[in-house]
Order: sequence, then C-alpha cells, then structure tokens
Amino acid sequence: MTTPAADGAPAYVLVLTCPDGPGIVHAVSGVLAEAGGNITESQQYGDPGTGRFHLRVQVEVPLGREELAARLEPVARRFGMDWELDVVGRPVRTLVLVSRAAHCLNDLLFRQRSGRLPVDVVGVVGNHRDLEPMARSYDVPFTHVPVEPGRKPEAEARLLEVVRELDVELVVLARYMQVLSDDLCRALRGRAINIHHSFLPSFKGARPYAQAQARGVKLIGATAHYVTADLDEGPIIEQDVHRVDHSSTERDMVGIGQDVEAQVLARAVRWHAEHRVLLDGHRTVVFR
Amino acid sequence: MTTPAADGAPAYVLVLTCPDGPGIVHAVSGVLAEAGGNITESQQYGDPGTGRFHLRVQVEVPLGREELAARLEPVARRFGMDWELDVVGRPVRTLVLVSRAAHCLNDLLFRQRSGRLPVDVVGVVGNHRDLEPMARSYDVPFTHVPVEPGRKPEAEARLLEVVRELDVELVVLARYMQVLSDDLCRALRGRAINIHHSFLPSFKGARPYAQAQARGVKLIGATAHYVTADLDEGPIIEQDVHRVDHSSTERDMVGIGQDVEAQVLARAVRWHAEHRVLLDGHRTVVFR
Amino acid sequence: MTTPAADGAPAYVLVLTCPDGPGIVHAVSGVLAEAGGNITESQQYGDPGTGRFHLRVQVEVPLGREELAARLEPVARRFGMDWELDVVGRPVRTLVLVSRAAHCLNDLLFRQRSGRLPVDVVGVVGNHRDLEPMARSYDVPFTHVPVEPGRKPEAEARLLEVVRELDVELVVLARYMQVLSDDLCRALRGRAINIHHSFLPSFKGARPYAQAQARGVKLIGATAHYVTADLDEGPIIEQDVHRVDHSSTERDMVGIGQDVEAQVLARAVRWHAEHRVLLDGHRTVVFR
Amino acid sequence: MTTPAADGAPAYVLVLTCPDGPGIVHAVSGVLAEAGGNITESQQYGDPGTGRFHLRVQVEVPLGREELAARLEPVARRFGMDWELDVVGRPVRTLVLVSRAAHCLNDLLFRQRSGRLPVDVVGVVGNHRDLEPMARSYDVPFTHVPVEPGRKPEAEARLLEVVRELDVELVVLARYMQVLSDDLCRALRGRAINIHHSFLPSFKGARPYAQAQARGVKLIGATAHYVTADLDEGPIIEQDVHRVDHSSTERDMVGIGQDVEAQVLARAVRWHAEHRVLLDGHRTVVFR
Repeated sequence: MTTPAADGAPAYVLVLTCPDGPGIVHAVSGVLAEAGGNITESQQYGDPGTGRFHLRVQVEVPLGREELAARLEPVARRFGMDWELDVVGRPVRTLVLVSRAAHCLNDLLFRQRSGRLPVDVVGVVGNHRDLEPMARSYDVPFTHVPVEPGRKPEAEARLLEVVRELDVELVVLARYMQVLSDDLCRALRGRAINIHHSFLPSFKGARPYAQAQARGVKLIGATAHYVTADLDEGPIIEQDVHRVDHSSTERDMVGIGQDVEAQVLARAVRWHAEHRVLLDGHRTVVFR
Repeated sequence: MTTPAADGAPAYVLVLTCPDGPGIVHAVSGVLAEAGGNITESQQYGDPGTGRFHLRVQVEVPLGREELAARLEPVARRFGMDWELDVVGRPVRTLVLVSRAAHCLNDLLFRQRSGRLPVDVVGVVGNHRDLEPMARSYDVPFTHVPVEPGRKPEAEARLLEVVRELDVELVVLARYMQVLSDDLCRALRGRAINIHHSFLPSFKGARPYAQAQARGVKLIGATAHYVTADLDEGPIIEQDVHRVDHSSTERDMVGIGQDVEAQVLARAVRWHAEHRVLLDGHRTVVFR
Repeated sequence: MTTPAADGAPAYVLVLTCPDGPGIVHAVSGVLAEAGGNITESQQYGDPGTGRFHLRVQVEVPLGREELAARLEPVARRFGMDWELDVVGRPVRTLVLVSRAAHCLNDLLFRQRSGRLPVDVVGVVGNHRDLEPMARSYDVPFTHVPVEPGRKPEAEARLLEVVRELDVELVVLARYMQVLSDDLCRALRGRAINIHHSFLPSFKGARPYAQAQARGVKLIGATAHYVTADLDEGPIIEQDVHRVDHSSTERDMVGIGQDVEAQVLARAVRWHAEHRVLLDGHRTVVFR
Repeated sequence: MTTPAADGAPAYVLVLTCPDGPGIVHAVSGVLAEAGGNITESQQYGDPGTGRFHLRVQVEVPLGREELAARLEPVARRFGMDWELDVVGRPVRTLVLVSRAAHCLNDLLFRQRSGRLPVDVVGVVGNHRDLEPMARSYDVPFTHVPVEPGRKPEAEARLLEVVRELDVELVVLARYMQVLSDDLCRALRGRAINIHHSFLPSFKGARPYAQAQARGVKLIGATAHYVTADLDEGPIIEQDVHRVDHSSTERDMVGIGQDVEAQVLARAVRWHAEHRVLLDGHRTVVFR
C-alpha cells in the first residue's frame, strides 16, 4: 500500500495548519530528523491576514504510518495543528458526479488510466444516463440518481449513501448541473470540488456563453473551487482563461470553455489528491 | 502627410460598417480596382446577431485621399455605410488623462517615441500634478485640471476645451480616477478608451486588490474598453490576465496588475489608432 | 451531404492561392454575387515576401458544388489559382498513425465524437498494438502495421495501401514514433500533420524531457506542422507552451508536454479540416 | 539601512546551498528559533539529480546582521554551505549595460523609480551614446565605453573598472550587443544577467526576427539567463513567449519581442535582487 522510496523507506506527505508562531518548523523537523527522515519536498506559508501557518512536507522515513503519526502527535497537540499524514502517491477514492456533458469525465478517467492523476475513481453518479457507457468503458460502476422535481432530498440521501458505501474521500462535480443543498454542502465540506465557467465581466442567468458572446468578451475562463453553501463562491483552487474574439460563435466559446474546464478541473483534482491544497479561511493555499 | 508605398502610391485604410447583404465587397473592390488600387490587407465580418457587416481594407491607390473618397461616396450611400478613409500610419492626435499612477502614461509615451504606437500625444491632462514632470520629459504639454468637490462640471468643461483646442481625436483614460459625467461620455462616444482592473469573480467597492487577495483569486486581469455612460460597461476592446498565487500580497498584485493594465491599454490604443476596432452594437469587432 | 444554411442555400468554403495582383477579390466576389451568394466569412492575405495572395471565403450559394465550381473555373484559370471548393462542415476522412502513447489519439477521438472536430477518423494504424482497444471502443478500425528492422519499405507500402483503400484525405501522426521516408513524405505532401515536442533551447538526441529538465527550462512546448522530407522542419501550423519550474521532474514535464501536444494537434487538425491552413512557401497562412 | 518589521525586528533573507542530507532544516530553524526569529517565508528544494539542497528563508530576528551571521556560521560550516544573509528589501547596486535599444533600460529604470524593483541602478554603461539622455533623465550616471575593433580588452578593462568603482553587485546586459570575453564572463560569474530573444525552432545568424517571420513561427520568446562563457547558454532564470501569426511583419515581431524581453528581464532581475535565484549546477532554482 505504501510507495517505498528507492532505498526502501516509505515516503509520506505531511500537511498541517495551525496558528502561526515561532518554533513550528523546528519542532516538526526535529521529529522527522529523529525518526531518520529525509525531507524531499517542503513548502510553508504563514498568512499575515489570517494568522495561520501552513506546511506541507514530503519525507522518506523508515517507519510505518501509525508509528510516525504517534511521534508527531505531541507536536501537533502542542501547536494546535489540524494535520494529516498520508502515503505519497496513494490514490484518493473519488466519486465523480455528472449530468450530460462528457468532457470533464472523459478527461479525468483518461488521466487516471494514464497514471497522471493519483485518484481511484470508484464510481460515477449521473442524474442522467448519458455518460453510463463512458464510465463502463473504463470499468467504473455508474449509478443513476435522477433528481425529480420536489424530490431532491431523496436524491441527495441516495448520493450520500453512495459516498458512504464506496468509502469516498473526494467528490468531483464534473459539470454536474444540480445545485446541492446547504446540508449536503456542509456534509462534503473540504472534500467536494466543483468546476464552473467564468467570465470578465460575470454573467447571471441562462446561457452565459451567449451573454459573453453578445458582450464581446475577449477571454473565456473556468474556476475550480471547493463546494460551499454559497453557490459558486467556495474557496478557489485554480483558474485559467483562453482567448476568443468577435468571430467566435456561442458554439465556439462553449467548445473552448470545455477545454479550459477540463484542464482546470484536472489540475485542481491532482493538487487536492496530492495534498497540495490547504484551506486558509475563505481562500486556499496551493503548494504547487 | 501620407505614407507613400514603395512604388510611390499612397496607402489608405478604409473601414466601414453597414447592414449586411450581398454585393458589398464586390462593389467596394470594384471602386478600388478601377482606381488602380492594390489591396494589401483586408478583413471582414458579418455579425449574424446584429445583422451588421464590417470591413477593413488597406490599399495602395495612386490617388489623393479626397479623390478616392469621392469615388467611394456613391457606394457608401448605396449601402448605407458608416465609413472612414484614412492615410495608413497617420498618427492619431491623442490626449491622455491621468491622476497619480504613472505606469500607463510612461508606457504610452515610451511606445510612441519608439515608433511602436501610431499616435501623437498632443497633451496630458491630470487632476493632480504628479505626472507633470514625466510629460515634460517627453516634451508633451501638461494641463492641470483639478476636480474640486461639487465643481466637476467646470472641470469637464475645461477638459472639453482642451480636447477642442488641441484638435484631439482620441482620449485615453490612463488610470484617470474620476468618473466622467454621462454628458461627457456621450460627447466622447467612440473616441475615449479606459483601462480598468478586472478579476474573476469581480469585486465592488474600495481596494479591489485587497479583496482579490482575501478571496484567493489565481488570476489578475485588466480590461480596455470604450467609455460609455454605463461605468466600466463600455464595449470591450482587449483583455488579459496574469497569474498570482496565495503568497502574492496586495502590493504584489497591484504591481502585476499595473503590468497587465499598461500592456492591455497599449494594445487597445494601437488597434484603435490603426482603425482596427469597429463598434458592433454593444461589442467590438477587432481586426487584429 | 451538404450543410444547408438556414434558408436552404448550401454553404461552401472556397480557398485559393495565386500570384498577387489587382482585381482578384473583385473577380471572385463578382462570381459569387452573380450566383446569388451571401459571403459569411472572408479572410485574405498577400505575402509581400513570396508575392502570393491567399483567400478563404465562406459563402451560401443556391447552387450545387459542381455548378459553382464551373462558374469559378474561368476566374481561377485567369489568375493562375490553386484552389479548392468544399462544403462547409464536411468531415474530412482522416487516418491516425500511432505508436504507444495514447494522449493524442484519445483527444482526437473524443473531440470528433463531441462534434468539435470536423473529421471522420476512418482508421487508426499502429506500429504497435497498444492502442487497438482505444480505437475499437470508438468503433474505429485498427490496422497493425509493424515496422520491422530493414523492412520499412514494406511497412510504408502497406500504409499507403490503407490510405488508398480508405480514401484518406488527411493523415495525422499522433505521436507516431517512426521516421517517414522521403518518398512517403512526398506522397503525403500537404495532407499529413505531425506533432512534436519543442523546447527553448532545442535538444537533440534521446530523452529530450530529461535534457530539458537538466537544462532548467521554464517552458515546455509543442509544434504541429506539415510533414516534409526535412524531419521536424515542415511548415508550422500551430505552437504553444506551458510553464514548468525547477521542481518539475522529467515525469511531470512529460505529462505537461502531453497536454500541450494534444491541444496543439487538435487545433492544427481542426484548422486544416476547416480549410483554414494554406501553404505559403515554407510557411503557413492560418485564417483562424 | 535595514527594513524593520512591524514590531521593530529587522527582516533578513537567508539563502543557502549545500550537499543534501538529513537535519539541515532542523539545524537552521534551531538557530533562528533560539535567536527569537519569526520565519515569514521559506522555500526549499533538494535536487535528486545534483544531490544539492537549496533553502531560502525570510525571517524577522531582533539581532543585527553580524550577530545573526555569527550564530549561523557553525551550522553553515558543519553542512558545507554556500550561504548569504541579507537585509530584506536592500536595493542591490546594479550596473546596466546597453547599446542602442532602449526598451529594457526604460523598463528597468521606471520599475526602480516606481518602487517595484529592489535595485539601485548606480550607473549605465553604453558602447554607444544613444541612451545617455534616458539615463540622465533618471539621474543615473552614464559612461560611454566604446568597443573599437581589435580593442575589446581595453573596453572590458574599463568596464570592470566601473564595476569596481561603483561597487556593483549585479550587472544587467539590457540588449548589450557585444559578446563578452571568457575572462569577463568568469569575473562576473553568477552576478551578470543577460536577456536574449528565443524562438521555436531557434535561428542562428543575423536578423533572427526576419528568419522567424520567413519560417512562420507562431510564438516569439525571450530568455533571461546568467552570463557564462558559453554564449547564450548560461543557466536560465526566466522565459516567456507571445503569440504572432502569418500577418506579423518582421517589424511587428521585433516590437512584440521587445515587450517580452523587457518583462522577462525585469522578472529575472527582481528575483535575483530578492535572492530568489540559486545556482544548481547548470540550471537555476527559482523560489518565486
């Protein structure tokens, strides 16, 4: 289950967040040094705004995960850390929610199979059946959870059931066109990623690409963010844009938007699965 | 005053907009062919949304501007064209409005002097005196037009006076921190370009970079647009973005934003001065 | 077989190249106007270096393709044009050559199925069998044409046979790791597109990504070009880059490179299939 | 001379490179913690290829620079560190070498004056006099050091004299069109930054933009690197590109290239001046 380093020592990733203050790095590096650890990657950030300190360390240690965690425990308690210790490269058990658009699902499944995304897509849930064949062609079980008018609570209960049954760690909304209830958002806090299109300026209402075309925007964008009860307002993980011009039709823009969406979502999922994204109040720290 | 082509024939740029329909290009190219013209560049766009046709042609013709215009007149009338015929490369008489921030003015003046911007900055107007030395170092007259509380109408009248006195064709708001009145916007319609920062999502109110930093955006952008009475809502000419991350401070973001602003504004001014930007309803057609 | 416009008139794309000179546009637009044509898109470029004129027109004409071609014939002869008249949106019969890397093939097949690439992939040829399942999952016939040492001529003969049998119009080398012979390059001139990685500076020899990593480049790129006898030196259709840094491993760079390759190749194939790419000596004119 | 932190403690930047191994971070952070230091920024990288470890720390410590350095000395000796301790924000004494092109010099001087580049341009040396007025308008002394045929050694001797007289820490070749001798390259090793254009593919010989135009490249780039005896082959600090197309003339490309050059050079100079660039064999580690 672990990815042993070249010399046999397993490699771990440690991420932690705590109130900023002196001595944190010294204390953590002390535990790791005593354990015979070899730090291969390390990034930190103290946010002067929130007063929170964030650290991500990759380290090779000739100890089991439990034993290393036990050694870190006292330091974690002393500094009031939220922390996590994981094996480097362990695939994160991921559930993908979809509706009818295939581009993000196709991209995620292909990347996983190519060994470029450290996730294990354990299931796909669709409120439509359109993408069932694509999931099956990758041997991923597909569950149809329709959302009938007035019966969203039942659908969301079924969704949470799937999350529990499949022991899901990460939920990816890959152009899932249903608004999640506040309760579901809270239940999935910090472990659900959404992708949505975005423009300068922004457009409310239906057919945003048609609005963007009519407004003559020169850039089409996408934003990946954690899901929160504030729709499309969760902490941003990644953003990107692509250029368009006056001759781009709404259909061109949709196509370009799909490319940007798939790439931005893939980056966000990878960084999350590699424990590179830490919550810092309403924003993210991304140790790329 | 004209830029003669290699073989001596002067080069003109013709831009026109009219209701779309058959025969427009044939009619225009007929006049140009009869006049012995050699088309060196041509771009067109028919907007299915607005039903407007747009054309930009660069052509070498062994005729004076007046004579060529007289020959085009009947065709223009027949198709109901808004049109303009100018000498290629003629510097556009430009007035730059500034407040305290120097980055856009510095960029515009340096580009003009380097021969990379076909404008003639005939004056700089500031509501503060901070940038007077910079204007003077480029031998450009600086006019101080302070905007005192409750006396904006007087200031705007003075501004329009400068526009008239200097025979200004283009007004560039280079981080000019005053809101123009609706009347002034109308008076300058289609010949005033503004630059403003822009973000995904957008932020209202003071210190937008501080808001962007607190929100954790990953891109900082700028938008150049024609000035209209709807503040920051005029037809977009150009947009661009630059990447930031969690460690970017408000100050870093302001600096990055300034770079993007200067570049986006310079492109918009150049395209306008080269008659590459045509109004198409509420958006622009940019023949780059 | 044609894509009728909204009002029933079929839409055509006309592309032509000829020695530059006066009257070309007027002559062509005359034929189209007389035929009752409505030009919806038009781009032209006269290259002062090569003296060649290039034109691409999209036009709705209430005539069959043969009849319209017959009307254009005299003008084409008069100006010495290389020209082509096609139905807008007609899928181009495409053969994809692959070895073991799947990213470009996956991208092309998915885009075709999503209706975002006007090609009909009529076959996949691999010198290895690795990608046979992927082709089959898209119901595309796969032909295994191994290239055994010293027997390349036989393999290339088989390849040309497939090209003929399937009536192939476009050959796409989607990370096909075999060097084509000069003869085959000539046989496929102007209708074979290759994608290869590219770096600043460039690296010769094996494992270019390892070299790029050791050299500390900050950008990873890809170039799509027409195949010519000069290996990797054919006319460039499209290029793009993506940012890397010192912490990017060779494996990271390969992954990033694959993303750039797939996107650059897809754009090149789409532009070619839409008759937007014209040869202009050793370079291309791309009417995007 | 120091930039005191909010609470009065001066802020330092510590950069170090040494053979990788366990305990380095623990040892360094121990010294800083004992000194009452508060780490505000920290980045590290161990290169598996070269076996070198790199660290950059910003820290507020209530000690003078000499005293802090004395405390770090034993740790530095123990791990065989190349290291440097500087005051955060201290302007680096910089000499800019120029020929005739103004864009990079203008950009550097403007950024310094705007407070966006932590350098103090103490002099400009030109082998031509063209840019003397620009230097003077920023109150920077200009030295004319012509390079006469066959007398390069004398010119380089004069150059080194200026470097010594002005106590120069960093030499920036801002489009300085003279090849430096191997001896001068060695004398300036690690403290001279050059900017040059770069293309995909690369072009040897005169008028590279004309070659790029004739070749039909779609991207124009620039590379900033440390100067070494291998011309244009020093460790790369930063690279970027900008898009061009078939209609871009050689002159357009030169203009676009100048924009990219100025921006890439400014970033490289800023990162160097902030001690963010560390040499790692033939490449750089850039802690952005």
